[in-house]
Amino acid sequence: MNILITGGAGFLGQRLAMECLQRNCLNLDDKPGPAIEKIVLADVAEPPFWHSGLRENNKVDTRFGDISDQNWVNSLFDHTYDAVFHLASIVSGHGEQDFDLALKVNLDGTRYLFESIRAQDNSARVVFTSSLAAFGGDSMPAIVADHAKLTPMTTYGATKAIGELLINDYSRKGFFDGRSARLPTVIVRPGKPNLAASSFVSGLFREPLAGVACDIPVDPSQMMPVLGYRSIVNGLIRLAELPAADLGTDRGVGLPSINATVQQMMDALKNVAGNRHLGEHVIKHDAVIDKIVKGWPEQTNNDRALSLGLPLDNSLEDIVQYYIDDYVDGSDA
Amino acid sequence: MNILITGGAGFLGQRLAMECLQRNCLNLDDKPGPAIEKIVLADVAEPPFWHSGLRENNKVDTRFGDISDQNWVNSLFDHTYDAVFHLASIVSGHGEQDFDLALKVNLDGTRYLFESIRAQDNSARVVFTSSLAAFGGDSMPAIVADHAKLTPMTTYGATKAIGELLINDYSRKGFFDGRSARLPTVIVRPGKPNLAASSFVSGLFREPLAGVACDIPVDPSQMMPVLGYRSIVNGLIRLAELPAADLGTDRGVGLPSINATVQQMMDALKNVAGNRHLGEHVIKHDAVIDKIVKGWPEQTNNDRALSLGLPLDNSLEDIVQYYIDDYVDGSDA
Repeated sequence: MNILITGGAGFLGQRLAMECLQRNCLNLDDKPGPAIEKIVLADVAEPPFWHSGLRENNKVDTRFGDISDQNWVNSLFDHTYDAVFHLASIVSGHGEQDFDLALKVNLDGTRYLFESIRAQDNSARVVFTSSLAAFGGDSMPAIVADHAKLTPMTTYGATKAIGELLINDYSRKGFFDGRSARLPTVIVRPGKPNLAASSFVSGLFREPLAGVACDIPVDPSQMMPVLGYRSIVNGLIRLAELPAADLGTDRGVGLPSINATVQQMMDALKNVAGNRHLGEHVIKHDAVIDKIVKGWPEQTNNDRALSLGLPLDNSLEDIVQYYIDDYVDGSDA
Repeated sequence: MNILITGGAGFLGQRLAMECLQRNCLNLDDKPGPAIEKIVLADVAEPPFWHSGLRENNKVDTRFGDISDQNWVNSLFDHTYDAVFHLASIVSGHGEQDFDLALKVNLDGTRYLFESIRAQDNSARVVFTSSLAAFGGDSMPAIVADHAKLTPMTTYGATKAIGELLINDYSRKGFFDGRSARLPTVIVRPGKPNLAASSFVSGLFREPLAGVACDIPVDPSQMMPVLGYRSIVNGLIRLAELPAADLGTDRGVGLPSINATVQQMMDALKNVAGNRHLGEHVIKHDAVIDKIVKGWPEQTNNDRALSLGLPLDNSLEDIVQYYIDDYVDGSDA
């Protein structure tokens, strides 16, 4: 079994690859599959860090290039893939700064990838990472579920909503067997802040644990759906494995999420930190970020995702603890 | 005031141009505008017929080319437009036959057009014609309204849903002032059948009135939302004229429609026909058309459209009567 992960050198891409390697196979349609022979991690550039042992694994192949270059995308398909996880994307804040780049990477790049998969002609399993940012605006319900209309208020969200439509239509046509995973804000991302408007949500755990102050650009009462990276990765794999019949005609599924206020997140950090010295949280309003975040859903209905067996962390504290285990005290620290 | 109509040589495009010329101006934001100086009708090829007097009107300019050719689209913008009506499209049945062409024309072509309008930098008013085919599938509510999720079950519908997302995002970014008009099945189209799966709905009026038999490919109990072409054209203009503030963040509006069964349509024809000799209706099931039609909404909620002042025909009989006046007995007969 061969797997392609776009955005594969990113934090989630690497963790997904590690989880796949540890499992040794994907159980597509809930049937044990053949062992993984190769995982191709495709990304735009060398990442700031590699998780230890990953790049050295002889099943792992890395390819660097521009997903908005159709020739490069085609070059990834020098052999066939049984599963493709499409994580590569311009993020929310960046997309607001550069509309054209967001369309080029997130829409044109996605179409090139889908066309290459279609050309394989082997009904590959495809998981597209969408986002809760696909919801928004004045007609959005207070609690969003999979049947809520996608009404994005960022260009990033618009490209994600379009990707979900393409996943449904390519799947309906039998070009491949696709699914869209609508991700809530992923916590806790290690490393540096990025251009996602939600970047501070990881920062509010990460920076204080590193002894560094962290600016909070929104009101602490702001509610945001979040999920820990272990559940994100396990959710992406579960979504790949599910039989298509479980999904019906609309293959977009919101991963389950914990609907928490920023204050609850700051409190969870303190609950877990014990005697560790923590950098401060500094409330410092940022109008641009606040506006983007306010355009996103505050609460999700997890019923469909849970009924499909997609995992949900037990608590914010659990997420903080495994971040500490993995990245503060752990082997990737 | 200059107006561009893509698909402008088609039946609706021509009628829209005639209505604009008759009004002499558009009242954008409900304020009387300057007189129309030029209407450019852009289309892929010479149409089967021109409505009498239209092409000879010295305000009318015709341009023929391929909307999926970016250079040709750019060439239309040798002067600026105050309003653009984007009607050009591969239709539903054709899109099911040729996925690549549907994406090329309906998605790439739409993006080229939107980029050319954006480059004008004058906040043009843009009306994109979407379709009820943007709804569908197993999660569609029994009665669709504007807040229902767009879950298309045709490639045509998928490209229309994507166009609505682009209209919202280009408008949000201030690149132009766009609106999407979600059209029900338009009746009664004169001329020949086309590759739209809904083509028979015009045929069931048109062919019998011409003394010709018409095959009915679905069960007569099939309910379909329909609207007469006069209300379609007046609705497109009204949607262009509305102040943006009336629309909120989601600029997609379903035109009002009459939710009628195919049997009711056949009956309405007989009610209006009087002593005219009518060709027969022949019930002849067509699995492909039936499947596409069954994937579409059967009923619409017209509340938002009516509150925005979009017109609705009084009855099916009224629509049949004005078709007879215009095309059977009238000047365009």
